[in-house]
Amino acid sequence: MRVGVLGGGQLGRMLALAGAPLGISTIHLDPAQDACAGQVAPVLVGRYDDPALVAELSRQVDVVTVELEQVPLGAFDHVREGVPARPPAAAVEVTQDRLLEKRLFRELGIPAPRFHAVDGPDDVKAAVEALGLPLLLKTRDGGYDGKGQLLVRDPAALAGAWDELGGRLLIAEEVVSFEREVSVVAVRGLDGETRAYPLVENLHAGGILRVTRAPAETDATLAADAERYAARILDRLGHVGVLAVELFDAGGQLLANEIAPRVHNSGHWTIEGAETSQFENHLRAICGLPLGSTALVRPSAMVNLIGDVPPAADVLAIPGARLHLYGKAPRPGRKLGHVTVTAPDEGTLLRRLASVRALVRIADGAA
Amino acid sequence: MRVGVLGGGQLGRMLALAGAPLGISTIHLDPAQDACAGQVAPVLVGRYDDPALVAELSRQVDVVTVELEQVPLGAFDHVREGVPARPPAAAVEVTQDRLLEKRLFRELGIPAPRFHAVDGPDDVKAAVEALGLPLLLKTRDGGYDGKGQLLVRDPAALAGAWDELGGRLLIAEEVVSFEREVSVVAVRGLDGETRAYPLVENLHAGGILRVTRAPAETDATLAADAERYAARILDRLGHVGVLAVELFDAGGQLLANEIAPRVHNSGHWTIEGAETSQFENHLRAICGLPLGSTALVRPSAMVNLIGDVPPAADVLAIPGARLHLYGKAPRPGRKLGHVTVTAPDEGTLLRRLASVRALVRIADGAA
Repeated sequence: MRVGVLGGGQLGRMLALAGAPLGISTIHLDPAQDACAGQVAPVLVGRYDDPALVAELSRQVDVVTVELEQVPLGAFDHVREGVPARPPAAAVEVTQDRLLEKRLFRELGIPAPRFHAVDGPDDVKAAVEALGLPLLLKTRDGGYDGKGQLLVRDPAALAGAWDELGGRLLIAEEVVSFEREVSVVAVRGLDGETRAYPLVENLHAGGILRVTRAPAETDATLAADAERYAARILDRLGHVGVLAVELFDAGGQLLANEIAPRVHNSGHWTIEGAETSQFENHLRAICGLPLGSTALVRPSAMVNLIGDVPPAADVLAIPGARLHLYGKAPRPGRKLGHVTVTAPDEGTLLRRLASVRALVRIADGAA
Repeated sequence: MRVGVLGGGQLGRMLALAGAPLGISTIHLDPAQDACAGQVAPVLVGRYDDPALVAELSRQVDVVTVELEQVPLGAFDHVREGVPARPPAAAVEVTQDRLLEKRLFRELGIPAPRFHAVDGPDDVKAAVEALGLPLLLKTRDGGYDGKGQLLVRDPAALAGAWDELGGRLLIAEEVVSFEREVSVVAVRGLDGETRAYPLVENLHAGGILRVTRAPAETDATLAADAERYAARILDRLGHVGVLAVELFDAGGQLLANEIAPRVHNSGHWTIEGAETSQFENHLRAICGLPLGSTALVRPSAMVNLIGDVPPAADVLAIPGARLHLYGKAPRPGRKLGHVTVTAPDEGTLLRRLASVRALVRIADGAA
């Protein structure tokens, strides 16, 4: 099988590496000349919605998929007839728009922060009346790694908010207080079967994921809730492949925050920590193969390498640590790689995780 | 780091895939136009000992290694000065010659079948006097997947034996009766540290490895013996990287059979079943990085796919099964891939292994 991937970043690269042993090769489309998937798979360079390039890509493959949600939906129109897009364009569309996402949560009975559509400067006031202050204003599109958001605490700040966010369609959300952020990565096969990885806990800083711990310390009810929510979303979207749901854990209740219709940074630990990695399961799903087990093999944690990379020898000297570099040039705030650390038990894991974080703290000054 | 690999077969391919996440890229030299490592890494096509090609390879890399032992030793002479060969030529040389191997075992106090050098037709008689009948005649060089061997039971067959094996230098070995074949894969770092993977049990058919079980059911003494033997060999050879020792388990005593100075088919299970794969540990060693843990994560078994490949969907439907295809064209007797199966316990492993073997039996009629 040959898979066409819209996107040639680290997610595409890890898909390519997961495909090789399965006899599944990938070919990528990416605007960047130096897209890092290009070190392990062919890349067509150009716009995601370039009609000729998308047609060319789909001519060479059996199925088309995405490694990012911000693909212009027009791209899907140029996929050659008879070549399925998995996930389908409709699933990607919902996750590109925070308002559609929130409406989907409501429709599926999935608890989420209250929200209000803000289609113009006048709606900001209506949103405050509905939700109170403080509130979060977010652009409906965009919104990646914490960008395109504004926390409004003060009525005086309301007037400028619309312009400050670029005059784009917005959504207002109530500010919920939560203890932590968690996520569930799940996969739906071509036959509609769904499987979820264990609920994980995520630590963000500066709007960027820093650390994931798998499994999240939690009771079985919460984990089961997350799994059920993910399955509902997968089914409703007619999704095929991996999808992630980020949630807030607010006093023992999960509130859905957002959906990513693709393999997800909070699922990187599955390469070593789960029976089947999220990358392999995504490929299995979109190629119509049986899904692999999503069970945890051993407690795991993942630390992102942002902006800089510590010396490989220092990382690899930590027992249970595995290094994943993406082959990208260093740049502040850029995800350059990650370290997964596994251990036979939670106590050992926390000690090893502390060693990894000490290295990374030195390197990037933030994690 | 960039690693030059003499050989672009499946072992080279799996080295390339293991290197990508570590920021280690490989470039291969192989006589075959369609060497399967070429699907994931660049390949220079030509003879292993082509002076210009080896020089070209070594110009592009930081270190040179091998993925097969039958490399003409002359190849090492053309490696550019300042680029280390790991393992060194001297380590590879010993493993190319069954007589040198056997002498090494004796010198290191490692039990092995008795042997006798056979340098000409007249020596065959002397070997029979020393070792009795039946005996095994083997070419000193060559000898791969059971080729270049002759079992002599009958004095009448002795006269033709020399010619039958092509008039090449031979070694005569006593025929030992053994319960099973086992092997130990071990690694030696640049700093001389050695680590061994658990002893595994191997099942051969037609001179080709079919199944590996990890760990071998065995008492701790035997496993410790194997580990000690491997460490002695690694140290004596000044080896850097992975090395495998195949042994016979003869009534609770291990007898060394042969050495492979490279990653080994009986170590493929380590990709899923061990803390660090043999491929990653080989790269760590030759790049001067700290070695990774060789501990078993969970009971594992590996089944080779020889000559033909069962449908991927059938393999992947077996719980715990992971498919590794090498991207090679099917041909009778050719290693096309392997399946690793893991399980939380031995009983489950055996049931899953039986499912895999049932599929493979249908596919190749031999395993």
